[in-house]
Amino acid sequence: MNPRQNLLTLEDWRSAYAAGAQPQALLGELLGRLSPTDPAWIARLDQAGLQTELARLATLDPAKAPLWGVPFAAKDNIDAAGWPTTAACPAAAYQPTADASVVARLRAAGAVLVGKTNLDQFATGLVGTRSPFGEVPNTFDADYVSGGSSSGSASVVARGIVPFALGTDTAGSGRVPAGFNNLVGWKPTPHRLGMQGVLPACKSLDVVSVFALTLGDAGEVAALIDGPDEGSPLPAPPLRPAWLPEKPRMGVPMLPELDTVLGYDAPWRQAEGRARALGAELVPLDFTPLFEVAALLYQGPWVAERYAAVRELIERSPEVMDPTVLEVISQARRFSAADAFDGRYKLEALARAIAPMWQKVDALMVPTAPTHPTLAEVAEQPVARNSALGRYTNFVNLLGMAALALPGGFTAAGLPFGVTWIAPGGADAALADWGRRWEQARLAEGDMVLGARLRLASPSDTMLRQLPASTPTLALAVVG
Amino acid sequence: MNPRQNLLTLEDWRSAYAAGAQPQALLGELLGRLSPTDPAWIARLDQAGLQTELARLATLDPAKAPLWGVPFAAKDNIDAAGWPTTAACPAAAYQPTADASVVARLRAAGAVLVGKTNLDQFATGLVGTRSPFGEVPNTFDADYVSGGSSSGSASVVARGIVPFALGTDTAGSGRVPAGFNNLVGWKPTPHRLGMQGVLPACKSLDVVSVFALTLGDAGEVAALIDGPDEGSPLPAPPLRPAWLPEKPRMGVPMLPELDTVLGYDAPWRQAEGRARALGAELVPLDFTPLFEVAALLYQGPWVAERYAAVRELIERSPEVMDPTVLEVISQARRFSAADAFDGRYKLEALARAIAPMWQKVDALMVPTAPTHPTLAEVAEQPVARNSALGRYTNFVNLLGMAALALPGGFTAAGLPFGVTWIAPGGADAALADWGRRWEQARLAEGDMVLGARLRLASPSDTMLRQLPASTPTLALAVVG
Repeated sequence: MNPRQNLLTLEDWRSAYAAGAQPQALLGELLGRLSPTDPAWIARLDQAGLQTELARLATLDPAKAPLWGVPFAAKDNIDAAGWPTTAACPAAAYQPTADASVVARLRAAGAVLVGKTNLDQFATGLVGTRSPFGEVPNTFDADYVSGGSSSGSASVVARGIVPFALGTDTAGSGRVPAGFNNLVGWKPTPHRLGMQGVLPACKSLDVVSVFALTLGDAGEVAALIDGPDEGSPLPAPPLRPAWLPEKPRMGVPMLPELDTVLGYDAPWRQAEGRARALGAELVPLDFTPLFEVAALLYQGPWVAERYAAVRELIERSPEVMDPTVLEVISQARRFSAADAFDGRYKLEALARAIAPMWQKVDALMVPTAPTHPTLAEVAEQPVARNSALGRYTNFVNLLGMAALALPGGFTAAGLPFGVTWIAPGGADAALADWGRRWEQARLAEGDMVLGARLRLASPSDTMLRQLPASTPTLALAVVG
Repeated sequence: MNPRQNLLTLEDWRSAYAAGAQPQALLGELLGRLSPTDPAWIARLDQAGLQTELARLATLDPAKAPLWGVPFAAKDNIDAAGWPTTAACPAAAYQPTADASVVARLRAAGAVLVGKTNLDQFATGLVGTRSPFGEVPNTFDADYVSGGSSSGSASVVARGIVPFALGTDTAGSGRVPAGFNNLVGWKPTPHRLGMQGVLPACKSLDVVSVFALTLGDAGEVAALIDGPDEGSPLPAPPLRPAWLPEKPRMGVPMLPELDTVLGYDAPWRQAEGRARALGAELVPLDFTPLFEVAALLYQGPWVAERYAAVRELIERSPEVMDPTVLEVISQARRFSAADAFDGRYKLEALARAIAPMWQKVDALMVPTAPTHPTLAEVAEQPVARNSALGRYTNFVNLLGMAALALPGGFTAAGLPFGVTWIAPGGADAALADWGRRWEQARLAEGDMVLGARLRLASPSDTMLRQLPASTPTLALAVVG
């Protein structure tokens, strides 16, 4: 447990302010602890910036600003006015004139951005090592990767530096680092959050995600940043009810193919047992069609969407890019516009074939990642080690689904093991409700800890105070 | 008026059978009149085929088969079991083993397919001249084009050979030939009809369309073929109510730029006056954003979707293709997969910018085409003359809208002038309801004729017996 910091959750921060603490003192102390050599950060708030933030806070009514004075971090592919956006590529840095929609909403709620976090360059990776700002180590064991691409955001939340941070998730970047650092990783339905001011990775698939120590905090932040902006595609994705059935049917992989050397099978079996004890019926499914969808993302024309996002740079000065990221994105040159349409047809056909799955199960329950490599292993096999991590995350956004990654226990060696639930698009709130049941079961087991063993969880950590939108319950009367 | 044929509408055919006529006699006589040199046909039912159809009719209960014994034609890019599909490219012909979904629905209703019709090759064109099976002349003046790509289907309906025919419409192929031949052209909302068994032009945009002499017949056929099939993308497009406001606001082009040499301005002014007399408020709009959408279709990466549809042929034996169609589709080679994604972003941005238009107007009212070239003019400038025809049709499917093309009167020289209404996707039935009001006004003027001056319209021709699906009227009570 970290003895220097007892302000971990949103409630901790609110309680401190309610008890008379001043943001100058609390945030000033926090800034003093941010190390310039910490690879989780690309940029940190300085004392001059803090004064600007304090002046802004003075204009807000704390009673109407639920995150008044609460610090947060944002992945450095998300714009914040006054901060350069680098996407971990200094040559591509630019100075945005406006906050991203999600940042604007948090700042309007009184939250204070204290830093921009490191990432796999252009959000291309699941490891957290593809950055000139350094490899982000795992918060439990520095020999292992943090996971990516939202590596820094996960790291600073797991260590209790900020209560929450924004990431982005295209292929798993908001879930894999949550799993590797014992965090809640909220991955909304694609297109339900406004994406203006977020540098695209694959623009049609990207979502902003939330890392938090507790489900309650993640839910509150998700509710605050929920909703489209003026750049959102029309129509908005449909909503679904805020609950799963009392005894949900959960699809699990018939062959999970977990890393037995790491001992991933034990926490997975434990997770299955916990879900059954909560009333879930586990239905083994053949995941082959889902893996075929996933293959489109890097082996098909969608990689051209990453190319489209960095086209000018990759054609002008490819040498400034991370070599692995350059190698991955350069694959796009193989694909024609006709290939892009063919890929879209293939995805539509797979989506149709997969849709009846939701008649058989209410959600999928999967290991967040099937393995967890060391930094050395990734250095040796940068593409293969990375690809293995996306097994249970890559297909989700292509199919417009919602996901929630939760801490699922630990391996015998003490590495975190993550469990993710996936549901049809719009069922974000239903996943949260199920997550609450899961967290309460873990709490009852007596050894649930927050982040990088910051403290034992308490009952209030598993409470859901707010949720993203869901369908209202309607009584329908057909009158004509 | 055609003295040899008094069976024009669905009701005419049903009445004849109700009065004791036999399909052997009526259809046999019809087949005898189908000329082997008529460029509207690519294939015609022969006597052996008729016997098979008669045997099939004998298994159907006429009381339960609303189109029992009624002949129809289908554009030759729509599969019918037993008929080759050529798409006007004999080298690409194949023998389908199953009916297209729409053909299967019509055959189940008792309709008899009597021929496959000519088209601009691979449905690429709006002229009706790009076919090795011959140029289809206009049914009013053989010096002028029929319009395309559904040239043959329009021709055989306008001449009263069949009461209705199926076309397809990607960029206007179901509307332009309707306008040029004094027909109703029903262009459904993209993706509301199942497209299995229809050879793609631009697969993401194509719809099956209906040509008929009367709105009542078009509505009945549209209702019969309505609904998705197992190949339809999910989710189905949303539905809208079955009516426009009593006094609809209709957007009209601020600068219609009509062909004044042909005298198109007079019937357009007349059409505007008729709409106003029906209670419509005409709102001049700047169509520039709509034209920017249209530019994506042929000047942007969507042409690669046509390439994807004929890729194998165009790479193997381009010399077998119509030279103009080859030239158009070959443009696709300029576009990369990244360009395809960029095009999609541009379309999404334009769609967002255009959506607020529907707060200002309930529908658009446009000339179906702004000009009408002769066959000789098209031969001289095959691409430019064609492009000019799509001014008011090209943008519609890219924006997911519904359209209904109706006869709108005649030029001083006696050429038909078409008017098209466009509404948000799902408003297909609302356009029909407006069309009914329009047709009744034209009927009241006393000189409304069906097709190629087959006969004067009667009150029953303007009745809507059936409609495609619309939203039920719901009373919503929020209870939770």
